Amino acid sequence: MAVTILLRAFCYSTFILYTNSLPRINENNYTAINKDTPSMSLQRLTALRALMASQPTKLAAYIVPTADAHNSEYIAAADARREWISGFTGSAGTAVVTASQALVWTDGRYYTQFEKEADMALWTLMKQSLPDTPSMESWLSTNLSEGDVVGVDPHTMTREEWTPLQTTLTRSKMKLLPVASNLVDAARSQLSDPPPRRPCNQVVALPIKYTGKTAGEKIKELRKKIAEKKTSALVVTALDEVAYILNLRGSDIDYNPVFFAYLVITPASSILFWSSGSLPDTVTEQLKEEGVKIEVKPYSNIVPYLQELAKNEAAGSGRAVWLSNEASEAIHRAASGSDVLNQPLTLISEVSPVALMKLVKKEVELEGFRNCHIRDGIAVVRFLRWLHEQVDDGQAVTEIQAADKLLEFRKEEDDFMGPSFETIAGAGANGAIIHYSPSRTGPQRTIHQQDMFLLDSGGQYKDGTTDITRTRMMNRSPSPEQRDAFTRVLKGQIAVGSALFPLGVKGNVLDSFARKSLWDVGLDYAHGTGHGVGHYLNVHEGPSGISWRPYPHDPGMKPGHILSNEPGFYKVDEYGIRHEDLVEIVAITKESDHPRAKNLVGDYDGRGVLGFSTLTMVPHQRECIDAAMLDDLELSYINNYHKRVLSTLGPKLKERGLVQDLEWLERECQPIVRG
Amino acid sequence: MAVTILLRAFCYSTFILYTNSLPRINENNYTAINKDTPSMSLQRLTALRALMASQPTKLAAYIVPTADAHNSEYIAAADARREWISGFTGSAGTAVVTASQALVWTDGRYYTQFEKEADMALWTLMKQSLPDTPSMESWLSTNLSEGDVVGVDPHTMTREEWTPLQTTLTRSKMKLLPVASNLVDAARSQLSDPPPRRPCNQVVALPIKYTGKTAGEKIKELRKKIAEKKTSALVVTALDEVAYILNLRGSDIDYNPVFFAYLVITPASSILFWSSGSLPDTVTEQLKEEGVKIEVKPYSNIVPYLQELAKNEAAGSGRAVWLSNEASEAIHRAASGSDVLNQPLTLISEVSPVALMKLVKKEVELEGFRNCHIRDGIAVVRFLRWLHEQVDDGQAVTEIQAADKLLEFRKEEDDFMGPSFETIAGAGANGAIIHYSPSRTGPQRTIHQQDMFLLDSGGQYKDGTTDITRTRMMNRSPSPEQRDAFTRVLKGQIAVGSALFPLGVKGNVLDSFARKSLWDVGLDYAHGTGHGVGHYLNVHEGPSGISWRPYPHDPGMKPGHILSNEPGFYKVDEYGIRHEDLVEIVAITKESDHPRAKNLVGDYDGRGVLGFSTLTMVPHQRECIDAAMLDDLELSYINNYHKRVLSTLGPKLKERGLVQDLEWLERECQPIVRG
Repeated sequence: MAVTILLRAFCYSTFILYTNSLPRINENNYTAINKDTPSMSLQRLTALRALMASQPTKLAAYIVPTADAHNSEYIAAADARREWISGFTGSAGTAVVTASQALVWTDGRYYTQFEKEADMALWTLMKQSLPDTPSMESWLSTNLSEGDVVGVDPHTMTREEWTPLQTTLTRSKMKLLPVASNLVDAARSQLSDPPPRRPCNQVVALPIKYTGKTAGEKIKELRKKIAEKKTSALVVTALDEVAYILNLRGSDIDYNPVFFAYLVITPASSILFWSSGSLPDTVTEQLKEEGVKIEVKPYSNIVPYLQELAKNEAAGSGRAVWLSNEASEAIHRAASGSDVLNQPLTLISEVSPVALMKLVKKEVELEGFRNCHIRDGIAVVRFLRWLHEQVDDGQAVTEIQAADKLLEFRKEEDDFMGPSFETIAGAGANGAIIHYSPSRTGPQRTIHQQDMFLLDSGGQYKDGTTDITRTRMMNRSPSPEQRDAFTRVLKGQIAVGSALFPLGVKGNVLDSFARKSLWDVGLDYAHGTGHGVGHYLNVHEGPSGISWRPYPHDPGMKPGHILSNEPGFYKVDEYGIRHEDLVEIVAITKESDHPRAKNLVGDYDGRGVLGFSTLTMVPHQRECIDAAMLDDLELSYINNYHKRVLSTLGPKLKERGLVQDLEWLERECQPIVRG
Repeated sequence: MAVTILLRAFCYSTFILYTNSLPRINENNYTAINKDTPSMSLQRLTALRALMASQPTKLAAYIVPTADAHNSEYIAAADARREWISGFTGSAGTAVVTASQALVWTDGRYYTQFEKEADMALWTLMKQSLPDTPSMESWLSTNLSEGDVVGVDPHTMTREEWTPLQTTLTRSKMKLLPVASNLVDAARSQLSDPPPRRPCNQVVALPIKYTGKTAGEKIKELRKKIAEKKTSALVVTALDEVAYILNLRGSDIDYNPVFFAYLVITPASSILFWSSGSLPDTVTEQLKEEGVKIEVKPYSNIVPYLQELAKNEAAGSGRAVWLSNEASEAIHRAASGSDVLNQPLTLISEVSPVALMKLVKKEVELEGFRNCHIRDGIAVVRFLRWLHEQVDDGQAVTEIQAADKLLEFRKEEDDFMGPSFETIAGAGANGAIIHYSPSRTGPQRTIHQQDMFLLDSGGQYKDGTTDITRTRMMNRSPSPEQRDAFTRVLKGQIAVGSALFPLGVKGNVLDSFARKSLWDVGLDYAHGTGHGVGHYLNVHEGPSGISWRPYPHDPGMKPGHILSNEPGFYKVDEYGIRHEDLVEIVAITKESDHPRAKNLVGDYDGRGVLGFSTLTMVPHQRECIDAAMLDDLELSYINNYHKRVLSTLGPKLKERGLVQDLEWLERECQPIVRG
């Protein structure tokens, strides 16, 4: 799944020139959306404006980001406030409403969609990708007047976003005001269109055989850090971090096996703020077995709880609360007691220790990753064989039908829990749209013989998460240009996959290796090269990644991290190419099974040598590879990879009697030879 | 000159694992230093401690950084306060003195030197390079008590350094106090050893034929930005920025043609804070011709002037002052009026607009860079020929004698003004000490036939600045290992030198190209790959560079930037290899004279293609290059480079009757062929 930069909201200006971001999973394709009627749009705006005017402090502007209270990359329908107020359903954008204007800042992926969906008599599109478009901060500070107050729900903005906006407004003698209750939600209720209920689906326990570490051990480690930091509590706000610590999984956000909750860990207690009353017995039972006694409080109690904690600390030892810099402004304010104390407490706001713990997978998790990639490889191989057969036979398979068929194959695999994101199945020109997902409604694109077909998909398995992209030329006869591009992208993937590098360097140092072969001829791709991947958790996981843009909180690469390796090339209106593997970071010595191991003469002065081991198990299309463009190492790398895929999947296919799939795979994995 | 990360003081913990930093130019080599007598060390500490105790607010600790008020990389003797108080003369380190303890944090380069120079009965060495050593912040917050006050001269710390230290101390219920007058200076005066007078040497005007842009035009551009920012004044604090804007040069800091001054530009005035009374007539005359009317005030008036400005703004329009985030805490406080106003003004504290302007060289400056590199190349070529002859003849040439001889050759070149830094001339094992400079006192190292000899040197010319490293195997018979390493370093330099990349990407994306050939076999070098270079200004110039570590204020690469390209390899106790060129960033099209131009099929979707043009004009040693390790492009790159060096320098050498030098160069530039 192509890299989404894990930055939101106000980073637009630098973000857009050179980004990609996948659509919010589960969003409706805009061709299927009915435009709000003008009167409906106006009603909504009017209701919001009335609320802005009637606040204790009158608001000159109200900001509606695309965000939930947990800084989730994908949001639930209950949090789709920007969508409701503007009518625009795209996954990215920030709305600003003033008494006389209504604007949405969004990027180049969404200009057409915006104009189709929003009532353009009421709404102004701010095209972020254009250099002359003022940023939201800049627009506010020049279009409002001194003394004006800008309101925002502090749950929908991280402190990292809040602080620079506040600085800009203060400089212009304006004020940024946290408005505790969400005005869009209030407007919805007023208009008898209340926001959907926040999901609170079943929570299940993930056994130790999948996690490798009890919740008790995780909490014990965190308590050790809490003691070292001399802090009163660690507030865990990211949903995947809550799930990770407790070895629990949910389904409140599509594709992400998480549940809406906060977790507060103190030296003596673990408190889960969760809306569904008590936990299921099986969950309580596992937590007990894993040494955790958990107290459950209502989800909405988090703010008063933290305020009370702050008051107690202020009256007592005055210790700081520890939380992620990606926690919301609301949580930061509550934890510092800024609305209840004259002298707010200092906070420790930094990269989450849970994110850093989760980043290094345990051996059990790694073994799970390796195993689920074998099963996932079988599903994808079976699908590719099926697809080629269908298209060769002249069957009209649409992109959606292809995605559905792939899901069928995955469902046959053990421990498969569902897709890890919405499948990107792009035939021909659709493959060049980086954030494309086929729509279920409206005209359907058939995959033709003469199409390049880009398939980016993944699975959630109880033992791990997969994310793979393969690109197929359906008629097996790519044009010389396509073959050149396919091979350059592959050279980029091999350059990363075969790289050796010192332990502790950050992922961004590898990005250029992936691009070099394209850069050499003036080509590039407008997304990063790799993202972290959760273990049966979010398919995009921070704080590391491989990008030209440094990940500011990347702690440096270490064995046990999982990354994607996914260079691409996109020819607009014609085709897209992406090769994506997941890779595991491994320590390399002269004895390792690595193409460069035997040439090692040093270990970077004792720092240690790292390299990658590829988890993904699906061959690349031989007909699209120009062997003359590969050097000896590259040629042997790809042939060894195909050999490993065959020797790993082959026996399983045979065992399961999938003879035709095996024969297909054998053909695909034949050695590639030069001219 | 190997890259020095332009970060100081408190970045130690991450900095040290993987850094290099050259010695402060002009520092005395420690072998020549007499250790302070114990009684002298104690006297100094006692005097400082008495001052700490007698402050209006008693100081529990006093911090003495290695810094001047302008965040200069190299400091003048007047600012060598840490050196005076500790006895330790190394270029990097921060001293902390409490009532009972005295400590210096410094890095691995200086452990031995520290123990030789400092009185170890009084001083504690804090070895930054060791992972278990607490940082200064951490040490202060755990070793002092709640309520304690830590003092520091706010002129010696940038706001970027001040703020996190303050946060840490506040969290531990301590206070960081700016102490306006420097206590080390006061102690010196008390002990009748007053600090040396701050240099205030002659300032000269650099004519337009060298600068290409009048001071008036530069100020006009800055005033346009001042108007856009709606600010009351731009405060220029970096010495090279003051020199650049006014087209003036000085000599207050060795090797850096700058002078101690601040410059304040308001919409209506330009005020130079300078200690030498009125400017020379020639300077005033040129400034007048260039459309600048300058007001000169005493250097020490900057703080009261800014305080007055803040008071006026607070009473009037309340506009913010604009200054660099690298300006000192003292200047930040003065400009915000924090000591004179109840409600300090907001500041605009960010990367300096002068730094960004200076970064893009004008065509006249670029032409100067190209020309002075030809003259510098002649000097270096003549020196290398001379050195090989001497060593071949069995003459005992020491490292210092070599450096002196090179200076003689440079002095023969037009517009040569002096070295751009202290020459690094390292024979054998000395070449592996990245920050090495030979000492004039103590035992002298002779350059032997069997030595690898690393020579890193540069010149200041009126039309530009040079910085070149070449490595020579004196007997022309490198060992296979040396040849391998020499070639790998060269492959790294060629990988950067021949790279194509999109306009606007930051320099850090190129760093890994330089390392790949070494990384592939487990080798690396502990410094960055490239630094910016000033035009007849500082040889290290921000805010760009090429490093695994991103330069946070790099605005992205553009044509007209100058960078060094200098990978290396260092085998401790044996030899060092570094190949350093200066390169100019140029726009590349299919028609360009660039090894990859003809293969271009795109321009990165309109962003534009950049590459490098090498300015440096000295061949690499053929005998050390293993042609079998070079691919076709690399081989043709190095041969074309040598051809260009010969065709550029050859006619000049001939014209000047330097026949033997020409013959030597012809031999050195012969094509390299495989096997």
